[in-house]
Amino acid sequence: MAKRVTGPEIEKLIQLLAKVPGLGPRSARRAALHLVKKKEQLMAPLAHAMGEAVLKVGICSRCGNVDTSDPCTVCTDPTRDHSVIIVVEDVADLWALERAGAMNAAYHVLGGTLSPLDGVGPDDLNIRALVDRVAEGGVREVIIAVNATVEGQTTAHYITDRLAGLEVKISRLAHGVPVGGELDYLDEGTLTAALRARTAI
Amino acid sequence: MAKRVTGPEIEKLIQLLAKVPGLGPRSARRAALHLVKKKEQLMAPLAHAMGEAVLKVGICSRCGNVDTSDPCTVCTDPTRDHSVIIVVEDVADLWALERAGAMNAAYHVLGGTLSPLDGVGPDDLNIRALVDRVAEGGVREVIIAVNATVEGQTTAHYITDRLAGLEVKISRLAHGVPVGGELDYLDEGTLTAALRARTAI
Repeated sequence: MAKRVTGPEIEKLIQLLAKVPGLGPRSARRAALHLVKKKEQLMAPLAHAMGEAVLKVGICSRCGNVDTSDPCTVCTDPTRDHSVIIVVEDVADLWALERAGAMNAAYHVLGGTLSPLDGVGPDDLNIRALVDRVAEGGVREVIIAVNATVEGQTTAHYITDRLAGLEVKISRLAHGVPVGGELDYLDEGTLTAALRARTAI
Repeated sequence: MAKRVTGPEIEKLIQLLAKVPGLGPRSARRAALHLVKKKEQLMAPLAHAMGEAVLKVGICSRCGNVDTSDPCTVCTDPTRDHSVIIVVEDVADLWALERAGAMNAAYHVLGGTLSPLDGVGPDDLNIRALVDRVAEGGVREVIIAVNATVEGQTTAHYITDRLAGLEVKISRLAHGVPVGGELDYLDEGTLTAALRARTAI
């Protein structure tokens, strides 16, 4: 804005909102205005919820999930099968897999992938804790659910090596045609993988 | 999510974020996760900024703008020409006009438009305060910058009538072809208005 039309508090609010993913500078203004208008119904509870989260949120010391309790909601859920651990790069991946709802397993969040160029080595990821969990016993399968990128696959190989001596089944996500996907738009690598892994009807 | 993967505090945060314009249920999750990861750098200051705004924000008793001071930043700005008042429907319109930066005037925010069907009459809008401001003297022009909708134009007519006896010039925004607009996509009303208001080159 060329000239100030509001006090510094609202300008500050707009600046901070613009840093939230999904909101840009323009939608941050719209969001700020909406919050200001819905001061009691929305902004006050949101400020409170964020304040609570700031105080309580932490990393689960067992699996690396973010939560307000440690161990986290997933680790302490007695209805899950804790003998299966799904290894993911990021908490967002854990949430995505839970939305699919296909498995009722435990998780392990790495917090990234190996990337020598960016200076990310094995000690920067939550890998040792995974090996310890498996070594403790009671785990029958580790499903490595990292992204199908070069870094993801490198990380998957490394984890497989680290778990090699232990009595546990290691698996990875299937490659293939996405459900609803059109062949015409898929890359050669995916099509080759889908052909190789074809299943009998 | 089928099963809970986080504590109630984060779920609550996601629910509230989803009500912010520009964020849906999916992007609210992404935003929440980002906020949780950037706890100290982003979430804490944002919670604080919202808390401050909740305490301080109010409606300017002079012009109807929302701000943390009363009279607001615009009304108390000595570098503005307070003899020109731009009348807008909403604070968002004030912000939009300020971004354009074409005028250095004062504003008056109506808080809506006349809409008998929705039960919005003259007393529900901030019109009396406008008449009082003009009657006080020192105002040479009122620019009615309401939306070019039926409700907006009805409101403009009503305000013109109310200001009729007072010594003040009343104007409205020009109708015409938007800058960068293609004639082919414009409605007949706009084209007719643009032709009638043609200017010599």
